[in-house]
Amino acid sequence: MSLDQARTIIHKALESGRALQLKPLSVVVLDAGGHVQAFEREDSAAPGRFAIAHGKAYGAVMLGMAGTAQMARAEAQAYFMAAVNGVYGGQVVPVPGGVLVRDSAGAVIGAVGVTGDTSDNDAIAAMAGIEAAGLQGEI
Amino acid sequence: MSLDQARTIIHKALESGRALQLKPLSVVVLDAGGHVQAFEREDSAAPGRFAIAHGKAYGAVMLGMAGTAQMARAEAQAYFMAAVNGVYGGQVVPVPGGVLVRDSAGAVIGAVGVTGDTSDNDAIAAMAGIEAAGLQGEI
Amino acid sequence: MSLDQARTIIHKALESGRALQLKPLSVVVLDAGGHVQAFEREDSAAPGRFAIAHGKAYGAVMLGMAGTAQMARAEAQAYFMAAVNGVYGGQVVPVPGGVLVRDSAGAVIGAVGVTGDTSDNDAIAAMAGIEAAGLQGEI
Amino acid sequence: MSLDQARTIIHKALESGRALQLKPLSVVVLDAGGHVQAFEREDSAAPGRFAIAHGKAYGAVMLGMAGTAQMARAEAQAYFMAAVNGVYGGQVVPVPGGVLVRDSAGAVIGAVGVTGDTSDNDAIAAMAGIEAAGLQGEI
Repeated sequence: MSLDQARTIIHKALESGRALQLKPLSVVVLDAGGHVQAFEREDSAAPGRFAIAHGKAYGAVMLGMAGTAQMARAEAQAYFMAAVNGVYGGQVVPVPGGVLVRDSAGAVIGAVGVTGDTSDNDAIAAMAGIEAAGLQGEI
Repeated sequence: MSLDQARTIIHKALESGRALQLKPLSVVVLDAGGHVQAFEREDSAAPGRFAIAHGKAYGAVMLGMAGTAQMARAEAQAYFMAAVNGVYGGQVVPVPGGVLVRDSAGAVIGAVGVTGDTSDNDAIAAMAGIEAAGLQGEI
Repeated sequence: MSLDQARTIIHKALESGRALQLKPLSVVVLDAGGHVQAFEREDSAAPGRFAIAHGKAYGAVMLGMAGTAQMARAEAQAYFMAAVNGVYGGQVVPVPGGVLVRDSAGAVIGAVGVTGDTSDNDAIAAMAGIEAAGLQGEI
Repeated sequence: MSLDQARTIIHKALESGRALQLKPLSVVVLDAGGHVQAFEREDSAAPGRFAIAHGKAYGAVMLGMAGTAQMARAEAQAYFMAAVNGVYGGQVVPVPGGVLVRDSAGAVIGAVGVTGDTSDNDAIAAMAGIEAAGLQGEI
């Protein structure tokens, strides 16, 4: 994941949020090792949004499992996702809006975390950014 | 648990995973004190798998209770396993794939943690490794 | 601190780093509450640079003291800055490159953290960004 | 960093330790994101050696700075390396034996951490493993 790709993802995700009249969004892009590449928080978003965006994307990279699958697992086995959070220092937010990013061969090259509107709308904005960068997303 | 035994366990668990066409696996071997003896993560496994494998095995050693029994306890009394995680620093992942290892006299000499496929398949791969090393496993 | 201002600060700080042939930089902008507004990490920078950039800027906002003054305090009273880090959860990196941002009336409206080259060069890049945004910096 | 490369590094580092009659060694290999790929601890090594080996390698990856350079920085500015440890959750051990691994183009693809003998001998064993794998090490 290059910085240019990360910028494209963030700018297009935010543009998508404005076009869809979503609430102010915050968008983080993590690399294949779960490390922060870029982040932007729109004006009027709540101050603590970095940690939520990060938590959505971080769990996706570390587990190789996107937010929708994480939520399903949390619904079925809450204690398992609680334990997962224990081993990852409480940094995992298991809901949609954490989107895996794959290259053309299907390898995970990072994740995008979006927060601010409903979890489903957050995921839509993330996908808009990922597709604008010519990459594949898994919500 | 010697390093030779740990290597055998890991290599045979991974071989078993390949033979059964499981997803890429990660395997940790802990000694009788719950300390890491050896670990391997297969190519294409998600980056954060060490912590999950470790959590499965660590709880097994610390509690003297294998993953299946831990999961039963978590299903019946989620708050108890949450409290256990509190006292062990959030390092316990209470699901199958955390397998106790016993010597011929039945004494616990360590534990194996496998993650990557379903919890049940993870436990099958762990048992294949433990048996190949001439030891007894409790899933 | 608006997102537009934060973008200007980051882009101009990175441009300055390229013009001065510094090593790959990472730049974070925090708001007046010490919360992340925006961040970018250049390609080839080490993966863990977010935490260092954040630590430089976070201490500046929380203490109302820029990196140079923090370093002087750490040199004179290492135990004091260690204690400060205790109360702030270990999130403070007390060296230059953590730059306070003030508005035209002198009020602190955030901080910029830059890491990647020497601490002094990091501070120079931060100042280039802050000045390009029409704001005042204190290194 | 593939598992095959990691195995070669570990086995050759341990062989080197035996040839040089070093104390029992523990060797970890981390990938480019600082995540554990493989680890082995020799028989008779102290139980807590995983964390030391990991700490040597983790700091190297996260900072893009090998153990020797970390130690120099810690000697010159102890409070800086203490602060770095704060932002990385206390996981950094800034001494030789944490060796950066680079590919033929010079890009960091991971790190090796060795512990058990003197820090300098640990680094020699790490280099023996890295060179046997056809990679470049920076001590």
